[in-house]
Amino acid sequence: MRIAVLGTGTVGKTLGRKLVGLGHHVVMGSRRADNPSAVEWASSVGEGAANGTFADAAAAAELVINARAGGASLAALTAAGADNLSGKVLVDVANALDSSAGFPPSLSVVNTDSLAEAIQREFPLARVVKSLNTMRADVMVDPGRLAGGDHEVFVAGNDSDAKAVVSRLLQDFGWQPEHIWDLGGLDASRGLEMWLPLWLRLYMQQGDKIFNIKVVSD
Amino acid sequence: MRIAVLGTGTVGKTLGRKLVGLGHHVVMGSRRADNPSAVEWASSVGEGAANGTFADAAAAAELVINARAGGASLAALTAAGADNLSGKVLVDVANALDSSAGFPPSLSVVNTDSLAEAIQREFPLARVVKSLNTMRADVMVDPGRLAGGDHEVFVAGNDSDAKAVVSRLLQDFGWQPEHIWDLGGLDASRGLEMWLPLWLRLYMQQGDKIFNIKVVSD
Repeated sequence: MRIAVLGTGTVGKTLGRKLVGLGHHVVMGSRRADNPSAVEWASSVGEGAANGTFADAAAAAELVINARAGGASLAALTAAGADNLSGKVLVDVANALDSSAGFPPSLSVVNTDSLAEAIQREFPLARVVKSLNTMRADVMVDPGRLAGGDHEVFVAGNDSDAKAVVSRLLQDFGWQPEHIWDLGGLDASRGLEMWLPLWLRLYMQQGDKIFNIKVVSD
Repeated sequence: MRIAVLGTGTVGKTLGRKLVGLGHHVVMGSRRADNPSAVEWASSVGEGAANGTFADAAAAAELVINARAGGASLAALTAAGADNLSGKVLVDVANALDSSAGFPPSLSVVNTDSLAEAIQREFPLARVVKSLNTMRADVMVDPGRLAGGDHEVFVAGNDSDAKAVVSRLLQDFGWQPEHIWDLGGLDASRGLEMWLPLWLRLYMQQGDKIFNIKVVSD
């Protein structure tokens, strides 16, 4: 697939590198085509990796990943262009963390709304799927590094076909089907995004450990 | 210990019965001393169990558990009386679920505040500890029924001694010390309460299964 990764942070770089490794063509999008971090990433990954503006990346893509910071996501997607998102699967992996009052951050969208729903409202023709925002980038692309992959990842969205595309991508990342939870419509993103404050506390308690959650059922 | 359980729902009844079983004296508090559910509970549990008003229960207690619905918690604690809570460990196991817009509910306090913090502000001399709100009542008092107890419970609060009291109680319930997470100050309750929307989605996906989360770390 031709995939756009919007965002040049750790999440974007890690997802982009993994996707190229799986044989996809990835264009990393940023505000400026000469973003040094994106240029360096494309050069270090090599064949199959490129970079450009948000619009360059989205225009060429069949699938778009929003890996921008939550508070900057709508601006990045607007720059990418509604026409370039129309009809495409748009995977939102972002968290709308608000650090204006210090650490740990609160959420800038919460409770009766979510970032993913805000994105869907702004780009009604995109097929938004929330996923992967509940863990660190290194766990996203390599679930087997923790407990042999015996932990959970979630998808939420209003378009079943789009969720199926994302689920296949997650399986390519190494997620076992029984650990990929379809939580229903995009409004389930509220729960996925509201998990972050507890995630942050667990992170603070564990130093810099890599972790995720497993659902234990009877 | 003499313990007050405020609330006559499943959580209050389950906690109360377990505590009596452990040898504590429990008074279940409700608005009216003749609350039929509380009378029936005290009678069915027998020796060590009693019931009365919120104030009756709190006055006699060394430790108070708020097991009322989140939206009704402050009113119940006000009826219990600030003097009857002063200096006492007050375990808040409630969730401020707002079902006014249907199911699944949202939260009536969230993000930059929490029910536990609101309780602490209202009753500054109580030693509030948030715990156990992240799971069903049957798991609270019998962690071993799931995966041999290999899953997590959390405590948050500003008073270390109060948290130690609650931690010992959790161990008496069967929680292994390594699964009792001290997440820090009472503001960590935000994350514990904001876990509920994801919990509800997991619940909806699993039918009526009993479940909890385990933290998987490297």
